[in-house]
Amino acid sequence: MGEAKFCDDLVLPGMLYGKILRSPHPHAKILNISTDKLKKRAGIKAVITGRDVPSKKYGIYKVVPETLDESILCVDKVRYVGDAVAAVAAIDEEMAQEALELIDVEYEILPGVFDPVEAMNPNAPLIHDKPNNIAWEVNFKHGDIEKGFLESDFVREDEFVTPAQNHAALEPHGAIASYERSGKLTLYSCSQSPFGVLQDLAFVLGIKQKDIRVISPYIGGAFGGKYQILPLDFCTAVLSKVSGRPVKLTYTRQEVFQCTRQRHPMRVRLKTGYNKDGTLVAKQCNIIGDNGAYNSSGPTIIGRAGAQLSMVYKVKYFEYRGLLVYTNNPVGGAFRGFGNIQSRFADDSQMDMIAEDLHLDPVEIRLKNARQAGETSPHGWKATSCGLTDCIQRAKETAEWDLKKRKKVKNRGIGIACNSYISGSNTGHDASSAFVKINLDGTVTLITGARDIGQGSDTTLCQIVAEVMGIPMEDVRIVASDTDVIPFDLGTYGSRVTFMAGKASIEAAADAKKQLIAKVSDLLEAKPEDLEIRGGHIYVRGRPAPEMPFGEAVKACLYAQGGNLILGRGVYNSPNTEKLDLRTGARNLSPAYSFGAQIAEVEVNPVTGRVRVVNFVAAHDCGLAINPYSIEGQVEGSIAQGLGYALTEDLLFEEGQIKNASYFGYRIPTTLDMPPIRTIIVETLDPEGPFGAKGVSEGTLLPVAPAVANAIYDATGIRVKDLPITPEKILGMEGGEERTHLNAKFEGKEV
Amino acid sequence: MGEAKFCDDLVLPGMLYGKILRSPHPHAKILNISTDKLKKRAGIKAVITGRDVPSKKYGIYKVVPETLDESILCVDKVRYVGDAVAAVAAIDEEMAQEALELIDVEYEILPGVFDPVEAMNPNAPLIHDKPNNIAWEVNFKHGDIEKGFLESDFVREDEFVTPAQNHAALEPHGAIASYERSGKLTLYSCSQSPFGVLQDLAFVLGIKQKDIRVISPYIGGAFGGKYQILPLDFCTAVLSKVSGRPVKLTYTRQEVFQCTRQRHPMRVRLKTGYNKDGTLVAKQCNIIGDNGAYNSSGPTIIGRAGAQLSMVYKVKYFEYRGLLVYTNNPVGGAFRGFGNIQSRFADDSQMDMIAEDLHLDPVEIRLKNARQAGETSPHGWKATSCGLTDCIQRAKETAEWDLKKRKKVKNRGIGIACNSYISGSNTGHDASSAFVKINLDGTVTLITGARDIGQGSDTTLCQIVAEVMGIPMEDVRIVASDTDVIPFDLGTYGSRVTFMAGKASIEAAADAKKQLIAKVSDLLEAKPEDLEIRGGHIYVRGRPAPEMPFGEAVKACLYAQGGNLILGRGVYNSPNTEKLDLRTGARNLSPAYSFGAQIAEVEVNPVTGRVRVVNFVAAHDCGLAINPYSIEGQVEGSIAQGLGYALTEDLLFEEGQIKNASYFGYRIPTTLDMPPIRTIIVETLDPEGPFGAKGVSEGTLLPVAPAVANAIYDATGIRVKDLPITPEKILGMEGGEERTHLNAKFEGKEV
Repeated sequence: MGEAKFCDDLVLPGMLYGKILRSPHPHAKILNISTDKLKKRAGIKAVITGRDVPSKKYGIYKVVPETLDESILCVDKVRYVGDAVAAVAAIDEEMAQEALELIDVEYEILPGVFDPVEAMNPNAPLIHDKPNNIAWEVNFKHGDIEKGFLESDFVREDEFVTPAQNHAALEPHGAIASYERSGKLTLYSCSQSPFGVLQDLAFVLGIKQKDIRVISPYIGGAFGGKYQILPLDFCTAVLSKVSGRPVKLTYTRQEVFQCTRQRHPMRVRLKTGYNKDGTLVAKQCNIIGDNGAYNSSGPTIIGRAGAQLSMVYKVKYFEYRGLLVYTNNPVGGAFRGFGNIQSRFADDSQMDMIAEDLHLDPVEIRLKNARQAGETSPHGWKATSCGLTDCIQRAKETAEWDLKKRKKVKNRGIGIACNSYISGSNTGHDASSAFVKINLDGTVTLITGARDIGQGSDTTLCQIVAEVMGIPMEDVRIVASDTDVIPFDLGTYGSRVTFMAGKASIEAAADAKKQLIAKVSDLLEAKPEDLEIRGGHIYVRGRPAPEMPFGEAVKACLYAQGGNLILGRGVYNSPNTEKLDLRTGARNLSPAYSFGAQIAEVEVNPVTGRVRVVNFVAAHDCGLAINPYSIEGQVEGSIAQGLGYALTEDLLFEEGQIKNASYFGYRIPTTLDMPPIRTIIVETLDPEGPFGAKGVSEGTLLPVAPAVANAIYDATGIRVKDLPITPEKILGMEGGEERTHLNAKFEGKEV
Repeated sequence: MGEAKFCDDLVLPGMLYGKILRSPHPHAKILNISTDKLKKRAGIKAVITGRDVPSKKYGIYKVVPETLDESILCVDKVRYVGDAVAAVAAIDEEMAQEALELIDVEYEILPGVFDPVEAMNPNAPLIHDKPNNIAWEVNFKHGDIEKGFLESDFVREDEFVTPAQNHAALEPHGAIASYERSGKLTLYSCSQSPFGVLQDLAFVLGIKQKDIRVISPYIGGAFGGKYQILPLDFCTAVLSKVSGRPVKLTYTRQEVFQCTRQRHPMRVRLKTGYNKDGTLVAKQCNIIGDNGAYNSSGPTIIGRAGAQLSMVYKVKYFEYRGLLVYTNNPVGGAFRGFGNIQSRFADDSQMDMIAEDLHLDPVEIRLKNARQAGETSPHGWKATSCGLTDCIQRAKETAEWDLKKRKKVKNRGIGIACNSYISGSNTGHDASSAFVKINLDGTVTLITGARDIGQGSDTTLCQIVAEVMGIPMEDVRIVASDTDVIPFDLGTYGSRVTFMAGKASIEAAADAKKQLIAKVSDLLEAKPEDLEIRGGHIYVRGRPAPEMPFGEAVKACLYAQGGNLILGRGVYNSPNTEKLDLRTGARNLSPAYSFGAQIAEVEVNPVTGRVRVVNFVAAHDCGLAINPYSIEGQVEGSIAQGLGYALTEDLLFEEGQIKNASYFGYRIPTTLDMPPIRTIIVETLDPEGPFGAKGVSEGTLLPVAPAVANAIYDATGIRVKDLPITPEKILGMEGGEERTHLNAKFEGKEV
């Protein structure tokens, strides 16, 4: 309807339009920047270069200063195509664009490196001053892995390659800054973490936190791509200060692709020891991750890629080494799944290969090794609740797995994969908090630090408050997004909102309810414990008729002698007090873990190599399902995004420049590409979760690619270990190493 | 600097511009309205008439339905020049203005009546269906007044006439409505009472309160003129609903004068019995108030005109009758002083006349009759604290009263007058409330229902919170104005904000502090009662060094196991539970009363009749002075507005049409007209007030006109009982009935 106002819809009085000048080179020294030609141009109100902005480096991990490697604008050199070099603000967008062309930048081109393995070569050009371009290294050991391999009946080793992926959220990144002479900065930014942006602005620009207000308007999809502060946030702030006027800057679609963040491409080497009966014994994983030009969330992502591997399937010995390597490619960063998706593809692909080695059914081997409730993974992750076995079995039944496996239909195949995922992580300061305000008209306002980024958390949090208060859901309103008003929240990522903001909301609502009940008990001369709120009315237990409507009780409280304002407060911190070790990726990261299993059924055209996904079953344990519709939405969205990752989303790089940086060239699945999906919610009751709920948004993405890859193998006998599985790879025009073992039915000969 | 954004500065995406078609006739039937000519005009996006909007009547007193007399747009007839007949929304303001000219309205002109006395004539045209056009009547008796007159040595009776006055706030009235198809209405309106606007919109438009959000941006002066909802609020809402786009409507300066609200002109007849020694015995007051075409706040104002009369000077017998009469003049409404200023002018003018009758000094007679602390007025107003006597004496000393009275300077005179005023009124639902949120950076945010309307209450409330918390004032931020976020507050009027919102803020801050101290005491292993916060640090009593900065304590609380969000809440309701009787104006209206005395010194030019105010002393008891600068600002603003009322502000009416509806024609005092002002703050400690404070904003306006009138009499011997005291009246060209007793010195003969 166009009524939800996104950042780019907003207009401030006297607003200017900003643009960023970007490096055309993947790696170059900046010898000189001249903005002289802009000086006499009317309509150009501000121009800034790296010399005009604070030089303080920023990044995700301020607690580990050596990881901070990014500047607002480049000063000495550029490190990828699209690195920000200068910015302008003009009275309209066209003029700002023209102004960029009048800035003269003198570069000395340096050799670039675009493959992380090459980048580690001692002769490779150094992008930052890190030996061998290694940005971060994670090492984790659980038991003696060599002993583990010796204890195993068999050992196999495979290598898998995963590509970059763009979030491709419908709303491009944008911000509007308004700097007042009083020193107060207001920034509208489509951020998943308004408080994160606030803290980063303060940190880099040297402004006090109290002088910054961040407002996150409606967000049109994020998927991790709007988690970290970007040059546009800093540049609009500085341009506004320089020009004395508000400045809006919205990235073009090309900038979204080239200059924001992308999923880290990874090379995953997996060596697994297993016994004859299919029991996994030892797993050793080596990952080389392409960090791109800057760190962003890379150091945690490379650790998480390893940590999740030891959670889904039980294993006694586990060793992990992750290398995050700088290249002159676009910057890797947070993306739904956060490093888990790459190693999950490797692990669940290899699981099928092991099953085949042992002539076991892929479902059978998974059931045998599936994580169980009460267990703790080698990394220390505690499965306080776990429905993985149920998920596998329910998915198997729903997909008619046995029938489909037995009755081999021409060109068709079926595959399964599993997952586990965190419900928020314990960073040591992972608080979510909430106020619950009761209004005079009997409605309730939840003031939450959590931002809905399009996934529907506003709805879920309102449900939670309605449930606790005992009033209809339509009587709950929600206020979010404005840091001047909302209480602290770490942000919307890590599948944490329902869990952590949900817990805070429960506590705030219960606090408000308790206050109200206490006051009403005075008015009604009843004991507080005898009062209850149902359907918007206050009852005395045992009496059928309500005593008074909820709204009247609120008014009576407020207007009573002395007055009683009902205002609840709640906060949630994970009970895990161990902190993540960034060097090992170990420790119990989350208060709860979700689990799932997905089965994909595909049909592969033997002539064109085109894969059609014909059926999809997704069974997920996300604790109690607070909002089943919303969970289905998350699952279906994950499957769409996972199918793109598995089959069609292919960023084409040429010396670090994306050649297909548009919706036209980059093929995300459309509704026409979607299979029928059956979502099964396997409810466990997590002891810590809000009403027993756990996170659901990210984990559901993980099994899609391996389930599809396993189904393609089942259909064709072709094992593609290099995503995306394009028709070319299936037809052997590239990749597809095991094409020699084609499945008989794929040749058109039904078995 | 242009940085504070007022309503008219705001721009919403796709916004249209609204205009209202107004009646050119003071009284007429609407026979037909045709908007046919607009149908094919591009750019006109909505047009509404009285038939297109809900017909529900609105007004201030929804609890007394018979007082509700106003419609969004007129349906059957118009009742004053400027009555709203239709409204349009177009893509720009010029097009909206042109559209008005294309609406054809067929009127049948009715006879109008413009004088309230004539309006009560049985033959007068009826404006509403009220007998004798009497809109409201107030009757109050305290003792047998005839007995009182018999007990008095002397009785005198005088009649005084006060004029209309325009608030003339710099910012014209404006609103922007944005109606979403979801049913949610957001209204930006420059309102003194965002919750009042919200409730009225819900009441008249039939929208649920929860679907309405009112945001009051920065306000550029109000003085009561932005207290009540106006047609622009309703019209923008309906135009936005019809057009599907946001609609802005800002009144022209002419509309502000003609079509908002004005101070009620009153005819005050005062009969006072007094003894030889100057003691007042009995007072009977009859007021006829010109209501204009609609009630607005008139019914309370006419009552308050009587109630305040019995508070300043003690009197044993008191009788009051107030008649509020409909005319076809512009609508009377709330205005700083709220009915008190008219009768105060009469009372303090007559006080000087009585003093002269008895050859008493005007100061002496006031000291003799001044209200004392602990007393209760005939209306039941309890002077819980009272510095009136001190105010009179301090003003007298500072103004060198005796010297000036004795040493008679040519053409110069000196005059005194007093006042009392409420600190918020007890309406039975007069709550103010506040949240205090403690932020991670150690700053504190006050979320208050009270709106700063330019008078500086934001500053005062932040001071209060800083004082309670023990942190520097610059570490307190304030959030106000958005009903989605703020807790309930009745509004900014009745001199209630410092008192009532201040009390709520104290309670909220103390609550937050208590929570923080409790948690910090756990961390420091100290008893809560041993901890204190000073200068932003937490100390253990007795130890000289601080234990930790306030901000660190906040972080430690939030990130502690389980987390502790510090959030205080506070609410204030007057402890007076008696409700105002609208028919008598009686009952103890306020939790506290302020008092004051002002002395004006004037020089009158005997040739031109022009009055120059040469000195002004204002002594005010507003309890403890929380912000002395702000109090001085209020006093100086009051004196400016009072001098305009006394001397120059003269609305020229012609059949209900204001002929000088502009800053050019309507002469508010400029800086060049201002005398030197000495403000004396007489601090009492009110037992109920916040830190002992009382209201200050309105009471300080009351004595200005009578002090000036008394000074003019002292200079000239001319007693003008009809405001404003224009040169023409002084020179006997009109009014000035006692011009026969000219003061000798005024003739140029110094005595």
